Amino acid sequence: MSLTNRDLVTIDDLTNGEIESIFSLADKMSDAMPQQYGLCHGKVMATIFFEPSTRTRLSFETAMHRLGGSVISVADPKSTSFSKGESIADMARIISGYADIIVLRHPWEGAAKLMADYASVPVINAGDGGHQHPTQTLCDLYTLKKERGEIRGSKIALCGDLKYGRTIHSLIFALAKFGANILFCPSAGLEVPENILRKLVTEYGGELEKISRNHRPVKPGTIPVDAAYIAPNQPHQLAMMPVDLDVEMKAGVDVVYVTRFQKERFTNEEIESGQHFPVIDQKLMSSKEFKKTLVMHPLPRVDELAYDMDTDPRSMYFKQAARGVPVRMALIAQMLGMKETSVPEETVLPKVDYPIYRRGYGVKCSNSRCVTWQDTEKNYLKPEFKIVSFDPLTFRCVYCEHGTEPKYVASTEWHQGMVESKKYHLANSHLAKKIKPENLIAFDLAEEAEAHGFKPGYYAHSPVEKEKTEK
Amino acid sequence: MSLTNRDLVTIDDLTNGEIESIFSLADKMSDAMPQQYGLCHGKVMATIFFEPSTRTRLSFETAMHRLGGSVISVADPKSTSFSKGESIADMARIISGYADIIVLRHPWEGAAKLMADYASVPVINAGDGGHQHPTQTLCDLYTLKKERGEIRGSKIALCGDLKYGRTIHSLIFALAKFGANILFCPSAGLEVPENILRKLVTEYGGELEKISRNHRPVKPGTIPVDAAYIAPNQPHQLAMMPVDLDVEMKAGVDVVYVTRFQKERFTNEEIESGQHFPVIDQKLMSSKEFKKTLVMHPLPRVDELAYDMDTDPRSMYFKQAARGVPVRMALIAQMLGMKETSVPEETVLPKVDYPIYRRGYGVKCSNSRCVTWQDTEKNYLKPEFKIVSFDPLTFRCVYCEHGTEPKYVASTEWHQGMVESKKYHLANSHLAKKIKPENLIAFDLAEEAEAHGFKPGYYAHSPVEKEKTEK
Amino acid sequence: MSLTNRDLVTIDDLTNGEIESIFSLADKMSDAMPQQYGLCHGKVMATIFFEPSTRTRLSFETAMHRLGGSVISVADPKSTSFSKGESIADMARIISGYADIIVLRHPWEGAAKLMADYASVPVINAGDGGHQHPTQTLCDLYTLKKERGEIRGSKIALCGDLKYGRTIHSLIFALAKFGANILFCPSAGLEVPENILRKLVTEYGGELEKISRNHRPVKPGTIPVDAAYIAPNQPHQLAMMPVDLDVEMKAGVDVVYVTRFQKERFTNEEIESGQHFPVIDQKLMSSKEFKKTLVMHPLPRVDELAYDMDTDPRSMYFKQAARGVPVRMALIAQMLGMKETSVPEETVLPKVDYPIYRRGYGVKCSNSRCVTWQDTEKNYLKPEFKIVSFDPLTFRCVYCEHGTEPKYVASTEWHQGMVESKKYHLANSHLAKKIKPENLIAFDLAEEAEAHGFKPGYYAHSPVEKEKTEK
Repeated sequence: MSLTNRDLVTIDDLTNGEIESIFSLADKMSDAMPQQYGLCHGKVMATIFFEPSTRTRLSFETAMHRLGGSVISVADPKSTSFSKGESIADMARIISGYADIIVLRHPWEGAAKLMADYASVPVINAGDGGHQHPTQTLCDLYTLKKERGEIRGSKIALCGDLKYGRTIHSLIFALAKFGANILFCPSAGLEVPENILRKLVTEYGGELEKISRNHRPVKPGTIPVDAAYIAPNQPHQLAMMPVDLDVEMKAGVDVVYVTRFQKERFTNEEIESGQHFPVIDQKLMSSKEFKKTLVMHPLPRVDELAYDMDTDPRSMYFKQAARGVPVRMALIAQMLGMKETSVPEETVLPKVDYPIYRRGYGVKCSNSRCVTWQDTEKNYLKPEFKIVSFDPLTFRCVYCEHGTEPKYVASTEWHQGMVESKKYHLANSHLAKKIKPENLIAFDLAEEAEAHGFKPGYYAHSPVEKEKTEK
Repeated sequence: MSLTNRDLVTIDDLTNGEIESIFSLADKMSDAMPQQYGLCHGKVMATIFFEPSTRTRLSFETAMHRLGGSVISVADPKSTSFSKGESIADMARIISGYADIIVLRHPWEGAAKLMADYASVPVINAGDGGHQHPTQTLCDLYTLKKERGEIRGSKIALCGDLKYGRTIHSLIFALAKFGANILFCPSAGLEVPENILRKLVTEYGGELEKISRNHRPVKPGTIPVDAAYIAPNQPHQLAMMPVDLDVEMKAGVDVVYVTRFQKERFTNEEIESGQHFPVIDQKLMSSKEFKKTLVMHPLPRVDELAYDMDTDPRSMYFKQAARGVPVRMALIAQMLGMKETSVPEETVLPKVDYPIYRRGYGVKCSNSRCVTWQDTEKNYLKPEFKIVSFDPLTFRCVYCEHGTEPKYVASTEWHQGMVESKKYHLANSHLAKKIKPENLIAFDLAEEAEAHGFKPGYYAHSPVEKEKTEK
Repeated sequence: MSLTNRDLVTIDDLTNGEIESIFSLADKMSDAMPQQYGLCHGKVMATIFFEPSTRTRLSFETAMHRLGGSVISVADPKSTSFSKGESIADMARIISGYADIIVLRHPWEGAAKLMADYASVPVINAGDGGHQHPTQTLCDLYTLKKERGEIRGSKIALCGDLKYGRTIHSLIFALAKFGANILFCPSAGLEVPENILRKLVTEYGGELEKISRNHRPVKPGTIPVDAAYIAPNQPHQLAMMPVDLDVEMKAGVDVVYVTRFQKERFTNEEIESGQHFPVIDQKLMSSKEFKKTLVMHPLPRVDELAYDMDTDPRSMYFKQAARGVPVRMALIAQMLGMKETSVPEETVLPKVDYPIYRRGYGVKCSNSRCVTWQDTEKNYLKPEFKIVSFDPLTFRCVYCEHGTEPKYVASTEWHQGMVESKKYHLANSHLAKKIKPENLIAFDLAEEAEAHGFKPGYYAHSPVEKEKTEK
C-alpha cells in the first residue's frame, strides 16, 4: 500500500510495514543527501503553525528544501488573517489550492484530523494540543531502531510528565505496535491519561500492571515506576509483582525517555510535583544498571535533563533531532508520491472496528480543548464518536480521542412510529445493553433527551434518585 | 504595451487588454503547471505585509515558487526594524536592492503608490487600508470570465459591507471597465463611499440610480438593493424606477458577491447593522431567481455566508481562491519580463485627465488613514491632488483617492508682484470658478492662507458669517 | 587560509587579506549575478533572529537565494519554542542538524560566540546586543573601498550615538585594521565605551587624542569632535592639538558616518542629548570642506540624516545597503566552501596574545547584558576572560568583550598544600603584580574568596578601610 495522498494524523495511520519503509528510505537518503535535491522540485509544502514551535517547523522545512521543494509558512498565528475567525475547514480548502502538502500544528486537539478531512492534499499532524505528534514518534523509533537494531522486546522507561506530552502519547502506541515493553515513571499527578491506557490494552493487546505509589517513598538514585506494559506475545521478561517494579527499572532498561515538564499547562500542584522528580544526570545514570541505557528526549529540555549528559555516548537527544530531517524527507517524498517503496509484510496488530455514533446531537466530547468545542468550528462540525465500550457505555471522540460516558440512552427501535414509547433510560441500566449500536441514541443530559421528545423511562433514574423523587 | 517593470497599485493601472492578456496566460499556465517551474529561477520576490494576512501572502508566495523563484518575506510587522520608525520611501529603496519585485500590504491608504514611487523594481499592491486590492479583483474577474464566458452585460449584486472592503472598491471599477452592471446591496450604514461612486460615474460613464431605503422594510428572503449602476452602451436591461430595484434583484442576477463584515473597523451602530443583514444560505438561494446565480466571496468569511452553501455547484469562493495562484503567476511573470504576451486591442474607457494640485501646502487630505498623514512620511512627502471638480471645488488625493473640498482659494495671477492683491476667497464664491487650474492656490483654513501672506478678500466669508462679523 | 567552516563573530575573525578576498569575490559576483544562481543549490541557511530586524535578515536571505540556496528562518522569537527556555547551546546543536550555515541576531552580548562554540556548522554574527555586527562593517568597508579606492590614510568621522551602536563598534576596529584615521563626534553622553578605545589602541596600535568638550559650545554648522585616532605608520596628517580637532573636522574628511540614535536603549539624559546633535543635511554639508565627503549610514535612519541628502551624489547609504547582497553572497559562498579564493598577503596587525582566566568562579562579567548572566545559560556556561592588563588588573570577557576589574586576588603558588597560607589581597596591592597569570585566582567579592577557603591577607584592605577596621 502506498503513502501517496494519505494523511498522517496519528501514529495509528501507519502500519509497521509503512513505518519500516519510511526508515529504510530515510537510511538511503541520509547516505546520499545531495542526490535528493531536486526530487520535489516544483512542489510546495505549507507549514501552518498555530503554536510557538521552531524545531518541528524548521525540521520539516529543511526536509522539504533538501528535496528541492519550496515552502510557504505561517509561523505566527497572530500575523495571519486566520485570526479573523476563519474555520479550519475553510483554511483546509484554501491552502489545498496553494500547497501540495500541509503540515499543521494547532493547540486544539483533533485539529489535524479536521484539517485532513477537508483538505484535498495530504496533511501531516505536527502536534495537535495534547493529542498526538506522530512525526516526533517516527524520529524516536528511528533512533531506537538504528541504535538497538530491534525494537521488539526492548524495555523503555517513560519519565516525568506523561500527562500533557503529546509526544509521549504517540510514542506509547508506536512502542506497543512494535512489541516493546514500557515502564511508566510519571511524576506524581502527571500520569498517563486513563483513555490512553485503555486504548493501549484494548487495541494493541498486551498487559498493564499498575502500582499505587501512595505510601512508597522514592529512593534517592532511582526513578519511580507506577505501571508496566508488557507487549503481547512477549516472553514474560518482567517480574509482574507490583513491588518489583522499581527493581525492574533497576534491572536495566534499554531507554530512559525523558520529557520536559509542560509547565505552561500545569496546575499549581503539578508544578510542585515536577520539582521533586529526579533529574537525569551523570550521578543518576552512573549506576551499573544504566550502563547501556540510552537517554532520549524530544527536546527542548529545561531542568529535567542535566547538561553533564551532553557528551555522554548514551545520550541520543541531539541525534534524535538531527535524524528528524531524513525521516521527514522520506515521509514527504512518499506522501507526495515522488518515491514509492515496497512495503514489507504487515506486522501491525489488527485494529478494533468500533461502531460509530454520528447522530450529531445528544453527546458532546468531554474535552474542552477538543476541536468540536470551538466557536469557529461548531457551525459546521458535528461531534462523532467511536463506541468503544457498552459496559459502561463509553464513546471516544474521533477527533481528540478523549473518552466520554453518556448518561442516558434511547433506541430508535423502541419508538418506531409510536410517540408514547419515546423513552430514555440510564446508560448503566440493563436496558441500555440491549440496544444495537445502529439504533443507539445517547444523551449527556436529561434536558436534552426531553428537548428531542423523549420522556424519562422506568430506568431513567438511579435507585437513589428514584427514592428521593418518590418521597 | 508590456507589463514589464510596471506597478500595479490600483485596478486602473491595467487596461482591459492587459487584464485579458493576464487571464490568457493564467489559462495556459494552469494547463501546464509543472512546465512553469524554472521560468523565474534566480528571481526574488519580497512579500512585505504590515497587516495580518495569510491567504494573499501565501497565494503570492506559492505563485512565485511555482515559477521557480525565491521569496523573502516580512510576515509580521512587529518583527521588523521597520518598527524603528523607518519611512516607506526608505524601505522602498532598500528592498529594491534586494528583490526583483515587491508585494506590499499596508494599513495606510496610499502606501502602495508611495512604495511604487520610490522603488526601482515593480510593486504590487496587496491591499492598502480600505483603498484597493487589485489582485483580488483580478481573481474575481477571472472566475467570472471562466464561469460565464462574458463579463459585459452581466448583473452583479454586491452585498453586505460595501464601506470598508477594499476588495469591493477595486471590483466596482473593474466591473464598470468591463461593462458589467452592478446592484449595490449594502447593510444599512455600510454603503459604498461617496467618492467611489462619484469616480465611477465620472470616469467610467454609465448611470447610477439610488433609492432611499429609510422607510422600506427588507422583505424576508430578499437582499435589499439601494442603488444600481448601468454600464454605458448597455441595452437598458434594468428597470430604472427605484421602487423596482428589489424586483430587479429578484429578476435574477449573475453573481451574488458577499464580503465579510470588517467588524474590526466598525462603529457600534455598524456592528448592530451587520447583525440584521440576510445570511447567504441555501434557504435564501433556493428561490428560482437565483437558480443560475454564482455565489462569490473573497474570504475569509465569518457568518455572512453559510456552510450549507459549500458543496453547492453555484458556490465559487474556493475556486476564486485557488485561481489566485495561476492569475498571480501570470502577473508576476509578465511584470518580471519573463513572459511577453500580445495584448489585444484596447477596450478600456478613456481616463479623465484631471489637472494636478501639487503646491505642497494649503490643503491636507481629508482621510486620516492616508499615508500623507503619517509621522514617518510627513518629513519628505508633500500632499498632491487631482482637481476633479470646480463646482464644488473638489480635490482627490493621488495616494488614497479620498475626496477633499478646500474651503478657500486664491490665484497666482491676482497678485503678480502686488502684495496688496494677495487675497483669498471662499472656494464656493463665483470668483473661484474663474481661476485657471495652473494658478490655483487652495486652503483648508483661513489661518493657513494668512500664514502664507494672503488677506481675506470680499468673498472670504459666507453671507451669514459676514452678517455676524459686521454686527 | 580558507574561510570554509569558519565562524564570523567579530570583525577580528577576518584578516585584511580575507576581507579583501571577500570584496574581490563580491565584485565578480556583482558583475555576473545570474551566473551565481545554483552555486549553493541544496544548501540550507538558517536565519535566527531574536531581535526585530528586516534589513539584515532580508539581505542575508536574498544573498542565499541569489546563490540558489534555501533558507529556514525564525523571524520572530515569540513564535518559537525557544521561548520555552531553551539554551543557546542546545539551539546551536539542534540547528546544526538542519542547516549548513547559521546567521544569528540576538539581544545578548556574546550570544554569537556561544552559538559558534556549540554549533557544528559556520555561524555568522548578525548583531549581538551592543557588541558587534561584522557583516554591516564589511558592507561599509566595501563601499568605502569602491568609492575611494584606498582605505589606508582616509579620515572617517563617526557621528552621533557612538555608545550603543554595535555597527560603530565593529567599524572602529575594521578602520584601524586597514589604517584609516578616525574622528569621534559623539553626541554628549553617547561616547564610545572605554573598553573599546582601550582595545583599539592596545591591539591595533596608533594613537588616540581626546578633548574635553565640557566648556566648548558646538558652533552652528559644525559637528563636534571629542577624540581622534591616528592609525599607526601614518604620516601625521592630523594636527594633534586638541583645540584643533574641530578645525580638523572642517579641514575635510573622507566620510561622515552617521548612525541612528538607539533611543530604545537610552536613559532620559541621553534622549535629551540626542536632540541637540546637528542633523546631517544639505545646509550642513554645503560648506566647501565637505565637497568630496561621502555620507554613510547603516540605516534605518530617523531624524539624524535629512531626506534632502537622498539624491545627493555624496550620499552612499542606499548603495551601502544594496551592496550588502554581493558582499554577503561572497561571504556565504566562501564559508560554505563553494568558492575558494586566493588570499593576498596578510596585512593584519598582529593580535595580542593575552593569558586566559577560566577558573569559572570568583569573577563575573561586569555587563548584565552579557550572555554569561542569563538564566538559561548559567547552567552550563562558565565565565571566561582574557587578562588584558595587570595594572590595574583588568579582565575582558571572551563573550561580550566588556572589561571587568576584579577587586581581590590570590595565587595558587602561595598555598600549595598549606591551608594557612590561603590568603587574598587587594588586586591593586603590590603583591598582585607578582602573581603569574597561570596561578592567578581573582575575586569580585571578599565573601566569595572566603567561601573558597581564603582568609584576608595583610593587603586585603585599602589603607582607608584598614584604618576604619582598626578603630
